[in-house]
Amino acid sequence: MSAENSAPLVGIIMGSESDMPAMEPCMKQLEEFGVSYEVKVASAHRRPAEVHEWASTAVERGIRVIVAAAGKAAHLGGVVAAYTPNPVITVPMKTSDLGGLDSLLSMVQMPSGVPVACVAINGAKNAAILAVQMLGTGSDEARQKIVDFKEGMANA
Amino acid sequence: MSAENSAPLVGIIMGSESDMPAMEPCMKQLEEFGVSYEVKVASAHRRPAEVHEWASTAVERGIRVIVAAAGKAAHLGGVVAAYTPNPVITVPMKTSDLGGLDSLLSMVQMPSGVPVACVAINGAKNAAILAVQMLGTGSDEARQKIVDFKEGMANA
Amino acid sequence: MSAENSAPLVGIIMGSESDMPAMEPCMKQLEEFGVSYEVKVASAHRRPAEVHEWASTAVERGIRVIVAAAGKAAHLGGVVAAYTPNPVITVPMKTSDLGGLDSLLSMVQMPSGVPVACVAINGAKNAAILAVQMLGTGSDEARQKIVDFKEGMANA
Amino acid sequence: MSAENSAPLVGIIMGSESDMPAMEPCMKQLEEFGVSYEVKVASAHRRPAEVHEWASTAVERGIRVIVAAAGKAAHLGGVVAAYTPNPVITVPMKTSDLGGLDSLLSMVQMPSGVPVACVAINGAKNAAILAVQMLGTGSDEARQKIVDFKEGMANA
Amino acid sequence: MSAENSAPLVGIIMGSESDMPAMEPCMKQLEEFGVSYEVKVASAHRRPAEVHEWASTAVERGIRVIVAAAGKAAHLGGVVAAYTPNPVITVPMKTSDLGGLDSLLSMVQMPSGVPVACVAINGAKNAAILAVQMLGTGSDEARQKIVDFKEGMANA
Amino acid sequence: MSAENSAPLVGIIMGSESDMPAMEPCMKQLEEFGVSYEVKVASAHRRPAEVHEWASTAVERGIRVIVAAAGKAAHLGGVVAAYTPNPVITVPMKTSDLGGLDSLLSMVQMPSGVPVACVAINGAKNAAILAVQMLGTGSDEARQKIVDFKEGMANA
Amino acid sequence: MSAENSAPLVGIIMGSESDMPAMEPCMKQLEEFGVSYEVKVASAHRRPAEVHEWASTAVERGIRVIVAAAGKAAHLGGVVAAYTPNPVITVPMKTSDLGGLDSLLSMVQMPSGVPVACVAINGAKNAAILAVQMLGTGSDEARQKIVDFKEGMANA
Amino acid sequence: MSAENSAPLVGIIMGSESDMPAMEPCMKQLEEFGVSYEVKVASAHRRPAEVHEWASTAVERGIRVIVAAAGKAAHLGGVVAAYTPNPVITVPMKTSDLGGLDSLLSMVQMPSGVPVACVAINGAKNAAILAVQMLGTGSDEARQKIVDFKEGMANA
Repeated sequence: MSAENSAPLVGIIMGSESDMPAMEPCMKQLEEFGVSYEVKVASAHRRPAEVHEWASTAVERGIRVIVAAAGKAAHLGGVVAAYTPNPVITVPMKTSDLGGLDSLLSMVQMPSGVPVACVAINGAKNAAILAVQMLGTGSDEARQKIVDFKEGMANA
Repeated sequence: MSAENSAPLVGIIMGSESDMPAMEPCMKQLEEFGVSYEVKVASAHRRPAEVHEWASTAVERGIRVIVAAAGKAAHLGGVVAAYTPNPVITVPMKTSDLGGLDSLLSMVQMPSGVPVACVAINGAKNAAILAVQMLGTGSDEARQKIVDFKEGMANA
Repeated sequence: MSAENSAPLVGIIMGSESDMPAMEPCMKQLEEFGVSYEVKVASAHRRPAEVHEWASTAVERGIRVIVAAAGKAAHLGGVVAAYTPNPVITVPMKTSDLGGLDSLLSMVQMPSGVPVACVAINGAKNAAILAVQMLGTGSDEARQKIVDFKEGMANA
Repeated sequence: MSAENSAPLVGIIMGSESDMPAMEPCMKQLEEFGVSYEVKVASAHRRPAEVHEWASTAVERGIRVIVAAAGKAAHLGGVVAAYTPNPVITVPMKTSDLGGLDSLLSMVQMPSGVPVACVAINGAKNAAILAVQMLGTGSDEARQKIVDFKEGMANA
Repeated sequence: MSAENSAPLVGIIMGSESDMPAMEPCMKQLEEFGVSYEVKVASAHRRPAEVHEWASTAVERGIRVIVAAAGKAAHLGGVVAAYTPNPVITVPMKTSDLGGLDSLLSMVQMPSGVPVACVAINGAKNAAILAVQMLGTGSDEARQKIVDFKEGMANA
Repeated sequence: MSAENSAPLVGIIMGSESDMPAMEPCMKQLEEFGVSYEVKVASAHRRPAEVHEWASTAVERGIRVIVAAAGKAAHLGGVVAAYTPNPVITVPMKTSDLGGLDSLLSMVQMPSGVPVACVAINGAKNAAILAVQMLGTGSDEARQKIVDFKEGMANA
Repeated sequence: MSAENSAPLVGIIMGSESDMPAMEPCMKQLEEFGVSYEVKVASAHRRPAEVHEWASTAVERGIRVIVAAAGKAAHLGGVVAAYTPNPVITVPMKTSDLGGLDSLLSMVQMPSGVPVACVAINGAKNAAILAVQMLGTGSDEARQKIVDFKEGMANA
Repeated sequence: MSAENSAPLVGIIMGSESDMPAMEPCMKQLEEFGVSYEVKVASAHRRPAEVHEWASTAVERGIRVIVAAAGKAAHLGGVVAAYTPNPVITVPMKTSDLGGLDSLLSMVQMPSGVPVACVAINGAKNAAILAVQMLGTGSDEARQKIVDFKEGMANA
């Protein structure tokens, strides 16, 4: 499911299969950047051991950035962040009752010691851009992709 | 730390030592009911393995109801609920910025399959009463304690 | 209206016939657990005496857990809780104007002395699971149903 | 506790003794209007039978307007309204966590069939003025008191 | 436009013709009570002089209760209340962006000295019931209508 | 009370004497700009005729911009705007319960046809700057004051 | 794109082409007033240099009032205001998740020194009226247009 | 102002000198990690050119992660993000009226194309940890610091 043949650098995890359509812009944008990724669907509450295993082994699998999407009492990002030294980008899913304010506060208000990097409600595309920006801290090639992307927007 | 010599029936867990003062009414009320309890302080994010161990072994230790208190992006209750068949009562801690709305939504809006029983912001005393009500579903003695408690309130 | 021939253990009450569709996942889940229940439709405001009678006699009818669903200024759970020693699970109904924030706060913020166990907005299925978890505090059989249910989710 | 020797026209009820300071402007304003009142402190949740008795007999005691003050999941006004044909003015109490938004929504969002007349958070003085306005619908004397009061404000 | 031949007792005013559908349950309920009313459509902002004239002369026209419906920054109720000693019931209109929270706070949070009696968002039917409850403070006939109405609900 | 001997260009009105401390930065800033102003304290609800008179005659008194400050259900700005062709800047006052969200929504959500120019909660200084920016649409001298002010900030 | 042959007095800028339908009432109303305008579509985040250039040169192009529309974290108005002495009217765009509360707070809560004049969520028509009111501070002709417009509303 | 003699890797910018105390935990944590940083105080609104210059030249100065703190309509993070390919961590400052909800929404809800990585209200320490996590995507040494830090928390 990676965009290239290399081991994926970005790990995407979402709490439910129903989050997939909202997250597709994230995968599409990573593909446009030519950045490899893997996708995992597992709820932190319904399948906790699987999530812990996935998060705990992310570094050794080559993952350097994690994107976690979930809705309502959205604990997935925080649970993953507890098990990995990787930065975790969280995408709060829009909800049908409170519009996603519940997902947002459940993600962004992380207590001291274990941060996540929260983007906008349903901000899947921005999660991909942010992931590449993070990779750009240690990779001139990745950073150049962002420079080019920003020029593309300015000239659109 | 139990109110009686018997193995504790209620397990109280809180995310931070700083939650202790807000949770004292819970312990005091359990003591007034004569219901034994144990107390654990451990963050789901900073010490996840310890929390999982504590939650996973709660039933075999004799715990029948869990009370979990945490603030902000309050994942503790959901994380504990993922690892135990016991009912989990969550107490959202008041926060200095959003008043506890963040803690409340992070707890109460649990997705399908893994519920928690949420009480009011800083509702520590009510958590104790609810714990005994739950025990009362299988214990005439516990239910009678609630009956007496309610009569006491009505006659106060 | 019970799932089995035995006297019902769970009493479901809702404020309006219009809450029925949102509450059906609760009944379906109880049936899957093989836990008997009864259903009552009565508004705490429009038919208060009937609600009080129903709540006051719940214990003697064999009810051990109550589920109360209502919307807007959702007093039903609190009113029922005032009249029974049983634990009361409240399900805030989604509303067309404020999304259910009104129902949620009207339920979860119960004052000291009379708790309810609040689940998510429209969290009908979770109310059923929580009811069985409560019964599990005094019943190995009920608790085993939750253990099995959680395994089912993990393996889904 | 009435302002005059006549049977009280206004019944004030509050959920807790702690609401008394916030409600004093209501009583003071009624006294300035020369309108008699009685005061009751009883929680709808902790002492429900007492509240029902008080509300059910209000009309025969001569009460024509009720003022109900409560905080958090503030059911008192709705519970009283269920038991009396009198109009019920509700005063949402300010809360230390959510500022009173919980009290407000719990009161104002009453479902169809049983209204209350909600004033502002901690709007005790306005509750008194509104009570006299209501009495003014059937009393030229009461209405004149409002006319005079408004002139006094305009000339202050 | 009154339900009977007598001079109308209730004056209904709304800020815009577009509020009419949401307010129809108010008129229908008054007709069921057999209480006469008049209807006025005028914005406090776009046609202020007309609103002042209507409010200022309400008492002399025989109006004893006013119902004011408006949305967004809903000043109509407060503006009318400034010009009449009658009690003013306000109905916050649901809005397409904030769900009516703006209308609600603009109405219910009236500052000291000039109260309104706020009902729920789009609570048009309840406004009618409350109006008759107010008339019932000075009219046994009106109060009896409420008694009968409540019995009807209890027996429905 | 004007900053210069000329007829005042800016009219400041506030709903209550208690708003004065929060509004002082507005007056101070106008004085620093050398822009004359007058100040009026009058509630739209308690002294409506006085407010209407003041607003209706503002243009002929030479006023070209109005600043209106009020709190809670803050109708003052809308009421003034109904009576004058001048632009009306509104300053929502911070409130002790809802933080000023009530004042803000009561002001900013003005319905179609009668706008106000809303600044931040307690944004008194910004109201003064905005007033001079408005005067700058027709006065090179006023606009130059803003240019100089902005340079001063950039060089501070 | 101006309504007349003269250099435009009002500059409208919006963050995205998708804001155009919501902003059309602004342009239509300016045309009804016979006030010339220009329209620019450019995101403060995606094309910042272009926005700065547009804002910095607005005065010399003859622009006297700016209208800025944007949604979500709506920085456009503040960014423009940083680069021009002109008054900047901001129109918060309704959003699909939070209804526009995010856009509103991102615009109205401007910090000290750089105000914007915020109107209601999607208040495009009111932005046009306010723009002409601002021009009216220095133009009897513009102010007369508002006087006429208000009369038209009162007589509609 | 860097923690070591090397060129700083992290650039901290805040909108006002008054944000400094809330941001000190960020600097202290970076020092504990031994990660060099620089600090800039400049408002995006009051000194925009300075902010643009600082952001535009960050990469060439060796900065790889930016932390931006601001309050109210907090545009600083978005403005900086528009001018740099570096990832931008935003810290919403608590506000005295809305608790920081305004700062949070102004930051986290960034529109498509230009993300920021938002942490909790006043989450200064977490911003530092997240910055090092980002550096860890390209540096085993930085990632090891996070591994050690997490172990320290687990053993505390």
